[in-house]
Amino acid sequence: MFFASDNAGPAHPKVLDAMVAANDGYAMGYGADAIMDRVRDKIRKVFEAPEAAVYLVATGTAANSILLATMAQPWQTIFCSPMAHIHEDECNAPEFYSGAKLTLVPAVNAKMTPDALRQSIEGEETRGVHGPQRGPISITQVTEKGTVHTLDEIKALTSVAKDYGLQSHLDGARFTNAMVSLGCTAAEMTWKAGIDAVSFGGTKNGLLGVEACVIFDSKTAWEFELRRKRGGHLFSKHRYLSAQMDAYLTDDLWTQMAANANARCAQLADGLRRMDHVTLQYEPDANMIFFRMPRAQHARVLSGGATYYVMDGDHTAGDPDELLTGRLLTDWSMSKTVIDDFLALMVG
Amino acid sequence: MFFASDNAGPAHPKVLDAMVAANDGYAMGYGADAIMDRVRDKIRKVFEAPEAAVYLVATGTAANSILLATMAQPWQTIFCSPMAHIHEDECNAPEFYSGAKLTLVPAVNAKMTPDALRQSIEGEETRGVHGPQRGPISITQVTEKGTVHTLDEIKALTSVAKDYGLQSHLDGARFTNAMVSLGCTAAEMTWKAGIDAVSFGGTKNGLLGVEACVIFDSKTAWEFELRRKRGGHLFSKHRYLSAQMDAYLTDDLWTQMAANANARCAQLADGLRRMDHVTLQYEPDANMIFFRMPRAQHARVLSGGATYYVMDGDHTAGDPDELLTGRLLTDWSMSKTVIDDFLALMVG
Amino acid sequence: MFFASDNAGPAHPKVLDAMVAANDGYAMGYGADAIMDRVRDKIRKVFEAPEAAVYLVATGTAANSILLATMAQPWQTIFCSPMAHIHEDECNAPEFYSGAKLTLVPAVNAKMTPDALRQSIEGEETRGVHGPQRGPISITQVTEKGTVHTLDEIKALTSVAKDYGLQSHLDGARFTNAMVSLGCTAAEMTWKAGIDAVSFGGTKNGLLGVEACVIFDSKTAWEFELRRKRGGHLFSKHRYLSAQMDAYLTDDLWTQMAANANARCAQLADGLRRMDHVTLQYEPDANMIFFRMPRAQHARVLSGGATYYVMDGDHTAGDPDELLTGRLLTDWSMSKTVIDDFLALMVG
Amino acid sequence: MFFASDNAGPAHPKVLDAMVAANDGYAMGYGADAIMDRVRDKIRKVFEAPEAAVYLVATGTAANSILLATMAQPWQTIFCSPMAHIHEDECNAPEFYSGAKLTLVPAVNAKMTPDALRQSIEGEETRGVHGPQRGPISITQVTEKGTVHTLDEIKALTSVAKDYGLQSHLDGARFTNAMVSLGCTAAEMTWKAGIDAVSFGGTKNGLLGVEACVIFDSKTAWEFELRRKRGGHLFSKHRYLSAQMDAYLTDDLWTQMAANANARCAQLADGLRRMDHVTLQYEPDANMIFFRMPRAQHARVLSGGATYYVMDGDHTAGDPDELLTGRLLTDWSMSKTVIDDFLALMVG
Repeated sequence: MFFASDNAGPAHPKVLDAMVAANDGYAMGYGADAIMDRVRDKIRKVFEAPEAAVYLVATGTAANSILLATMAQPWQTIFCSPMAHIHEDECNAPEFYSGAKLTLVPAVNAKMTPDALRQSIEGEETRGVHGPQRGPISITQVTEKGTVHTLDEIKALTSVAKDYGLQSHLDGARFTNAMVSLGCTAAEMTWKAGIDAVSFGGTKNGLLGVEACVIFDSKTAWEFELRRKRGGHLFSKHRYLSAQMDAYLTDDLWTQMAANANARCAQLADGLRRMDHVTLQYEPDANMIFFRMPRAQHARVLSGGATYYVMDGDHTAGDPDELLTGRLLTDWSMSKTVIDDFLALMVG
Repeated sequence: MFFASDNAGPAHPKVLDAMVAANDGYAMGYGADAIMDRVRDKIRKVFEAPEAAVYLVATGTAANSILLATMAQPWQTIFCSPMAHIHEDECNAPEFYSGAKLTLVPAVNAKMTPDALRQSIEGEETRGVHGPQRGPISITQVTEKGTVHTLDEIKALTSVAKDYGLQSHLDGARFTNAMVSLGCTAAEMTWKAGIDAVSFGGTKNGLLGVEACVIFDSKTAWEFELRRKRGGHLFSKHRYLSAQMDAYLTDDLWTQMAANANARCAQLADGLRRMDHVTLQYEPDANMIFFRMPRAQHARVLSGGATYYVMDGDHTAGDPDELLTGRLLTDWSMSKTVIDDFLALMVG
Repeated sequence: MFFASDNAGPAHPKVLDAMVAANDGYAMGYGADAIMDRVRDKIRKVFEAPEAAVYLVATGTAANSILLATMAQPWQTIFCSPMAHIHEDECNAPEFYSGAKLTLVPAVNAKMTPDALRQSIEGEETRGVHGPQRGPISITQVTEKGTVHTLDEIKALTSVAKDYGLQSHLDGARFTNAMVSLGCTAAEMTWKAGIDAVSFGGTKNGLLGVEACVIFDSKTAWEFELRRKRGGHLFSKHRYLSAQMDAYLTDDLWTQMAANANARCAQLADGLRRMDHVTLQYEPDANMIFFRMPRAQHARVLSGGATYYVMDGDHTAGDPDELLTGRLLTDWSMSKTVIDDFLALMVG
Repeated sequence: MFFASDNAGPAHPKVLDAMVAANDGYAMGYGADAIMDRVRDKIRKVFEAPEAAVYLVATGTAANSILLATMAQPWQTIFCSPMAHIHEDECNAPEFYSGAKLTLVPAVNAKMTPDALRQSIEGEETRGVHGPQRGPISITQVTEKGTVHTLDEIKALTSVAKDYGLQSHLDGARFTNAMVSLGCTAAEMTWKAGIDAVSFGGTKNGLLGVEACVIFDSKTAWEFELRRKRGGHLFSKHRYLSAQMDAYLTDDLWTQMAANANARCAQLADGLRRMDHVTLQYEPDANMIFFRMPRAQHARVLSGGATYYVMDGDHTAGDPDELLTGRLLTDWSMSKTVIDDFLALMVG
């Protein structure tokens, strides 16, 4: 019963099979492998973007930071939610790569609102050369609170950005969970909704460590390649990244894995909603749940065999009745039974 | 007959087996996996350094750049050979991470000489605050020309560094090839020879993509961790890096693989030395050969089924008698037969 | 009637006289001039800090950014008010020099509150290596809204910082205006109140362009010198900076100039408070006033010969009754008569 | 008898007069002062470049670094002489601002040769994404050894740059000394010779501290402004920079000052050439002389009242007959008599 993170689970066996299959003889390095040609085609097809620039890196922080560095200038500011991963969980990497700073836009349910975005954008550049200049916006989809922007919500944000001539980035570390949740296509959730570049995550959804960077207008492709190399993120034995992504996009493996993660999350949410001592904090649109419960209950469940993070305090010491927030992540590999077992444990 | 690079060959099957074995259930991310505990112990043992800080990253550029950033200040200069990988092949990554610049120290056989190093160091910091300040030295072992520093040569260089209170870094992308070539231990080639931190490469020697960063005085360990994260080089599913390194250090796999690569290189060099139309440029101490041969011969061999780089010109056009330089790399997976076949092709 | 900025007024004639006097014969450059020795002594005396490191630069942005770079690491965050000059008006310079990011601490009257500071600090570093680490705090004194932190308020903030082992920086672009307002000494407003380093401004108070950087624990002095040079902020003909600061600290010129600016501001505030159509937004503790007034009144006054900034809208177009915010700065050179004239114009 | 540096002498009284004259009433800050409008016009006229972008900063390091940052990308390398000020005397500032590295092109008489430049350019970018990409060239005029590039020499270098689509920067810290030496116009020495942007120095030629940055194709003007602000180099009380440059360009003051410095240098060189114990190292084309002389002679002269730098050793200890290099700088304020006195002292 491990709900601490969707990057703590195993990779899908088919992904490892593909890596083993790729481990045959010699292959050109640095992205010139034949599998990468196939991957590029598949991603362009999935995104209905035959001209898109497509690159692989191994971590989400690298994907976000290098993409943002191609979209922002060092004297600009990037607009994002206060809960954005690029703000809270990347130890200044986006700033390191881009030189830009981040402007935190007030959010509801971890989503920037269009009005707040407009107001934040208006607030910058009122000082001529003195203040940071307006740079791109970055939308986290799934949000760090487990909510999913609807297509209309994405469009509303990118539309505000376009009003000011700004580009839009999508941090899609949980891209497929969101896409499955919305029942839409990859194209609909990105360029058709005004997104210019996307971190298309695989690591949290069954890969070992691969994220694709997709730039719809490929004019910054060469810059991306140089920034990737300069950041130390160009893999010599690139075929092992390619192979993962290749398996991911074969026979709908990517959507099936996300669908299972989301279904298990829904099953979990259903169970939790029925418990009097539990309150859900956000609408769990994808594979992440935040819930409130008395400290004593957390202590009981966590010592009873479950693993998850309590976000706002020590569950082992303090007022037993104080409400603390727990975070639960489901992943592709989780079975119905595990959820049932956990719910049974939660009931007590 | 693929001699273009030692990162173009396959990974060792045992390494992939270890990754498959690691793919079981849940594991804490970001280096907190149980396999990493084992790897840390093994590396400390191998290096006879029970207090060393040990970290894994996925690329050699990351290993070098993050280590150098913990060793150099942004107003300093790093002393290295003009052929150093950190100068020629990392697209400004060491400068990006450290802020420091590089001072190119004249080299013989791609190795800085102690006298030239001393003179270069003396040349800096004669200008007070105006010029860059003296920073660490970086030694590439195996060099980018295939030569190997003897232990005395390493000591002579680190000893000059110590005279000025400077630290010494070893870029060991082909660490094991050098170690096997010298018949020494990992400790002898590093801290016993005055090295403070080492990029202990695995990718070029049978792994998919793992380099260990070993810092003998672990006081910058926490800084390294933050710089790694800030560079986007901390892996969430870290166990798959750990598993590779774990297999690498099991049952002498690392030294066996390097030994084979070196033996094939020696076999190749022996053969080439017997050919009148071929001249070796450097002493091939490890698994890399630079050789001179008329353009027409290169053209014949390359069209005959061999793959390698011609470094200084187009082999398909120009004076057929002009001597051009070819570069040959051998790897762990190469058989005696392939070498024999290639030599046969070379003879014509 | 020019109230747009305290950096738009003239320099004090004595300052120019000192520059002319310094313009005699040869002087060693780069801070080795004899006048700088005198300046260093004077500043150490004024700050009662005989060991302090003292440096001059020509702009406030340089002073803040270089000091903060010596106090913060690239993986840290600097805590400041959302209205801080380092956040709003330096076009990412503090981030550029330090690599750190800024955390905006909720403020009342443009001053961070100790509780909000504590909460912000607590909010960081809950994520181990993933989030930015806690760095120094920076207090703007006078604030960008014209309020002045009392000594107790400064102590309360630096005390919170010390609870977490963090350093405290004071952005004293209007240092002397605050000091005069508080009736305290320079030592009391800085190290005696827990400040570790201060940007001691002169430009806004009668100099042409000089700010002193004072570091009470001088162990980062050499680093400061290198960062200053690396930023291009070391002046070859340094004596002309020294001469300005020398005149500034002679015969209480600095405090007299600030006293006049503050007195004119008080005179102005008194007058404005008596006007029904005017509301002061903040307590004008030093030499800056923010006031609300109908658009039509701004238009009348601004076309009547006064110059100042309307902060939140276009005074020439829109609802004549809408309240807009004006900002007024007084400086050392302003006469009582000018204030009277302006107040007369304001009455209409 | 002070020959240590041309930035150790006084500023021209007319320059200070202009600053005093500018010190009247209120003026818009940050370059919006009326004097700057006049300066911009004058510089455009002097350079015969009515569309050029013109900015002022206070140090040569700032001028070079900010200009180069607008010309180079962080993954590029800048080609310059090994003696270039940007390499030896700016403590990594050009790298800090641009992110690029420097490639040292072999030089004769401190001037890159066109062949060596071509070879250096050819040497880069043979490694695709792995190595740094080709960036701009930077020519130091006057060189750091006192030689002056002829117009043909500048053209030959910029012509090589253009062959590769690269831009050309001129570090003109001693611009006017070179121009007077060549008897050419500012336009002839810059854009007519293929220069794209120039650091037009004033500090070493009679100003207190002002350098103009002139960009002939003004499309990066806004970027320059933001980089200047982000570097902390935008002056609030900008009029005092403007006033200096305004006086500089009035009634040929700039060329007269450089002409005197050059004439004094010629007088000095003539005298030295006649001395048996003295050898000139380079052709002193402008206002700088490097000469060789026995240690004992240096000791005698330096203790006899002269001040200059001995570049390559301690003149107070060692073999009295060893030849050491002295460096002599002349400036606008030097009289014939001082030169005569120094020559008399040198004779002994």
